Order: sequence, then C-alpha cells, then structure tokens
Amino acid sequence: MRGAVIHVPGDVRFEDRADPKLEQPTDAIIRISATCVCGSDLWDYRGINPVTQPIPMGHEYVGIVEETGSDVTTVKPGQFVIGSFFASDNTCEVCRAGYQTSCVHREYVGANGAQAQYLRVPLADGTLVATPDVPDAKLVPSLLTASDVLGTGWFGAVAADVQPGKTVAVVGDGAVGLLAMLAAQQLGADQIIAFSRHEPRQKLARQFGATDIVTERGDDGAARIKDLTNGLGAHCVIEAVGTQQSMMQAIRSTRPGGHVGYVGVSHDVSLPGQELFYSHAHLHGGPAPVRRFLPDLINRVWTQQIDPGKVFDLTLPLDQVAEGYKAMDERRAIKTLLEP
Amino acid sequence: MRGAVIHVPGDVRFEDRADPKLEQPTDAIIRISATCVCGSDLWDYRGINPVTQPIPMGHEYVGIVEETGSDVTTVKPGQFVIGSFFASDNTCEVCRAGYQTSCVHREYVGANGAQAQYLRVPLADGTLVATPDVPDAKLVPSLLTASDVLGTGWFGAVAADVQPGKTVAVVGDGAVGLLAMLAAQQLGADQIIAFSRHEPRQKLARQFGATDIVTERGDDGAARIKDLTNGLGAHCVIEAVGTQQSMMQAIRSTRPGGHVGYVGVSHDVSLPGQELFYSHAHLHGGPAPVRRFLPDLINRVWTQQIDPGKVFDLTLPLDQVAEGYKAMDERRAIKTLLEP
Repeated sequence: MRGAVIHVPGDVRFEDRADPKLEQPTDAIIRISATCVCGSDLWDYRGINPVTQPIPMGHEYVGIVEETGSDVTTVKPGQFVIGSFFASDNTCEVCRAGYQTSCVHREYVGANGAQAQYLRVPLADGTLVATPDVPDAKLVPSLLTASDVLGTGWFGAVAADVQPGKTVAVVGDGAVGLLAMLAAQQLGADQIIAFSRHEPRQKLARQFGATDIVTERGDDGAARIKDLTNGLGAHCVIEAVGTQQSMMQAIRSTRPGGHVGYVGVSHDVSLPGQELFYSHAHLHGGPAPVRRFLPDLINRVWTQQIDPGKVFDLTLPLDQVAEGYKAMDERRAIKTLLEP
Repeated sequence: MRGAVIHVPGDVRFEDRADPKLEQPTDAIIRISATCVCGSDLWDYRGINPVTQPIPMGHEYVGIVEETGSDVTTVKPGQFVIGSFFASDNTCEVCRAGYQTSCVHREYVGANGAQAQYLRVPLADGTLVATPDVPDAKLVPSLLTASDVLGTGWFGAVAADVQPGKTVAVVGDGAVGLLAMLAAQQLGADQIIAFSRHEPRQKLARQFGATDIVTERGDDGAARIKDLTNGLGAHCVIEAVGTQQSMMQAIRSTRPGGHVGYVGVSHDVSLPGQELFYSHAHLHGGPAPVRRFLPDLINRVWTQQIDPGKVFDLTLPLDQVAEGYKAMDERRAIKTLLEP
C-alpha cells in the first residue's frame, strides 16, 4: 500500500509502505475512508519534536473493516468504524473511569500511520465503534472529526466543567479550539468567548457558537475576559494550544473556583506553583479519552445535530498529503482532509 | 493589650500592642479564648518568607465577641465565635460559589495578629460563625482547629474529590495532613494511606483514620502507593506540604483520572506541563475557603463526632508563645495551642 512518511522536518512523502497484517487476535485491519492532518502532526513537521528516522504519519481515521483477528467480537468486516488515536481495552479500571487514553494496555495507533490506505488497529473491540450503517459521503468528514479533533475539543469542554449557564473562554482558534466552542455550545454554555485574531477562524467560531471574540493575547487577553465577566474571569476556560503563554492566559482568564480544561499538547510548559495556588482554579486535561465520547459524538453527527466537519477547509487526495501539511503549516488551511 | 510579634526570623516576642478598635461598621472585636501556631507561621520564623519589619503574628482564633460595628447583625457581644484567616463578605459571586478566601472584598485577618488578647475581625457578618452556646473548655481546642488547620485539611480532601469507597493518600504528616486524614475518614474513604516516618505522627494518623503508613518519600513513596493500589495510584491525593518534592510526589501517586487536592502553601514550586498533561490528574487547591465548611465542622465538633483537637500536643499560656514556635520548629510539637 501507500502512505505518508515524514523523513525530516518539512519533508512528508507519500510512498510505498508494507501492507498491515493482523499481528494479534485482538487486531483489526481497516481500509481508510478518510484521514486528516492534526495540529500535533505539525510539531514534527516544524521540527519542534525531533524526527530522527522516517516515521509513518497520521492518527485520525475512519474506515471500513477489512479483516479482524479471531478474538474480535464487536466489529466485523464491512462495517464503517471510528477509533481513537490510542487503542484501549475499554475494560480495565482506568478505562471504566473514562480515561481510555491512559488504559493499562494502551497502544498508540498513530505509530501505525493512519495517513495511508490501510491501518492496523490494536484492541479493536475496545477501540473501534461502528456507525449504524455505512454513512453517506457527506457525513464522513464530521464522523472523522470524532476520531480526535472533535473528541479532543469535547474533552476540553468536559474537563473545563462546561455546563448550562456557564461562561466559557477558549484559548486557541485551531481546529481543536473551534470544536471546543461547538462542544461548549452543545453542553449548554451561556457565553462562549473565542480568543481569535484571524477573520476566517472568527467566522467559523461564530458558526460553532462563539458569542464574543477577543483579539488580545496573553495578559491583555486575560484582562479582556475579566472585563467581559464582571471582573471575575470565566467559569470555564479551554486551553487548546499547549504553550507557556497559552496556559498562563487560560489560568489568568479563570475565576477563583473556575475550571481550566487543557488539551493542547504541552510543550516546554512550566506552571508556577504559587500563582496556581492563589488562582483557586481547577486544572484538568491531557490526551483526550476520545473513546469515552465516541458513541455520543457519533450519534450527534448521525442525527445531524452538529456539523463539525466544517472545520475542514481543504480537501485533498491522499497522494497530495505533503501539500496538506504545507497548507496548514503556512496557515492557509485550518485543517486538511485526505481522501485515499 | 499584649500579643506576639516577630521581629526577625527566630525572634517572636510577646509584647505590648495597641488595643484593636472598630474601624469599620462591619468590624467586630473579639476577646481571644484560644489561638495557635500554624505550620505556615514557621515560614516566617525560619526566614523562608522575608521578615523586614516587626509583624503581629497569628491567624487562627476562637473567642468571645466584645463589640460589634453598627452594621453587624449576625453575631453579638457575648457569643463564642470562630472565623477564617481571611475575612469575606460571604455574599459576592465568588463567596457564593464557595471560594470565600478569594472573596472580592477579602482581607487577611492574620494581618491583625490573632496570637494576642484581642483581635479585630473585618466583615464580621460574612466571616464569623457563632457556636450554639459558649462551649465547655474541653471543646475549645477542637473548635479552634476549624479556624484553619481542620478547615484546610477538609478542603484538601474535598479538592481531592474524596468520596465513599475511594483510596486516599496524604502527603505531609503535619497538623494539616493529619486532619486531612480525619476529613477523608469522615467523607467515607475506603483506604487512607499516610506518608509518615515519625512514630508519634503515625500513631495520630491511625487515630484519625489512616489504614496504611508509607515511610518512603518522593518517587519511592509514589511507587509504594502504586504497589498498594494495583499498580494504578490513589484515586485521591491530598498534598499538605507545599514543596516541589511533595507536589511531584502527590501527582505521581495519583491514578489517571484521579484528583490531587493541594493545600500546602506553595513555595518555589514549578510544575512540568508535559508530565502533568500525561498524568491525567485533576489538580485543585489553594488557600482553604474555611468559611464554606465552618457550619458543618462546628456541628461535627459540637456533637462530638470528631475530636480534631487531639492534633495539639503542646498547650502553653499565650505569654510563652516564643516557646510554642520553638517547639514546632524543632519538631518537638506537632501543633501548639496558646491560651491567653
């Protein structure tokens, strides 16, 4: 088969790779229907994460089950399935508590490279969720978002304790931040403040439920949130970037007793204990346990309550994956959908 | 009147101070029945916090109302009252959410020096809670703990989401840590693991509900918690020290999805973002909003459900306050009660 491989930063190639095979009786092989480029893929592309050898890329996927191992019972060939970027048994104590991305048997599916024609998914019973039927093509982009970017935004909103009537601020106007706004809106937030200075993203933010836009960043941005919240700060702040500045902006935008939900993959962040102590904020986040939310998210897409697929503003054939990275790196695209 | 004043680190004197007077119509003056030395007072005593001028000391107090300002309606002269170390209006949005130590009108009561014969308490209506009657002398130590050390341990347990059936670990065997164990026991924890290597404190820990004692610290301590919890870590970890080592020990003792409640006043702590991200822990803490818990804690003491006063292992007349600090600094005493 063919798939995307990064050789050095900035150099993603679509090339021959070995066909995946069942390795464990709990594996499934799926034929990819759609995949995409994640903001976190850009950490490699930009050389912020070291790339010391060729690595297959991609960890977001939907597809048709081709073949299952002998122990797999919940999905079968021909079904359309969605899974998380971490495989999980979904039965251990950690999974049952809703933290499937910390499953005691977790495996990183992305290591197998989902930006390809086929993908081996470990622990298929605990990882994959089948849709009610093979979906119409128009639903596929939205279903694909559930695999990571929507699931991650959703977890950010849940980790930030978004509830009806709450004021929510979202740091980051990338795809995760935008879909965190959609999640906040679905979870009943009263006011949703988007930090954004890019006109096309502001427009999408408003479509996803943002009620206010703040263009300032850092401490100026946090000060604007205070202005908008009676001097107190937001009840709920979702952090979807992962830098020192964005984390501090999130913490300083939160009222005492409020919640920060952080889902931006943390890079060179160091949180000052004393400021955190006196902030009285709750902090929770990490790699989104997407599996927890998949049945609900699939249902919301299937019944067309939400249209998160709008986050894809560039669609390319999979063999043009390199251009998909380039467009996102240059901020010409928010998120690139790839079709094999 | 006379009261405790720190002049330089290690030098606490019992000396003449001006009698407190009503300054605002919302003030009350109370005659101190009992006060005590806090672990956080030792930060000054040891010179870890700078002491650049003489400072009146003490922020934990119970006493009899002597006089109230014209706006005070909920307490009256002759009543026995308990208050938090922060005065709060108890009516603002932050107070109503249960974060009275971040009240928009908060004032630090400790600035007035509670290790004295009399104390001015600002915002008396929002700060002080009267007991049903003037208590028997034997209840006074336990009521005094509600002012800070019990309230702080209790908040640590609540912030760590202690609930029936949970496994709880407590980092720190000082008075706050010990009373956090009592709180965890009252809140229904199934297993309470005390980190402690001091025999008298281990004994008190067991009296307060500890089911297991771990003598290792740091990463060795965290590893022992994993051993005791099926490899996963505790559901709830209460941090009651405030150092880098204790915070990391707490985070590393927590299972994915678990909760760290931190109440040790943070000193030179810096939390690594990436480790926090992948820990999947919830973090919450800060200066305990004691006022939230006061009615419940007073009731539990009044009805003799709990005896937190056992944490005082040294009682001195107030004029020997200097010895009270010295004994705690030298770890000859867990906590010193002072009687005017």
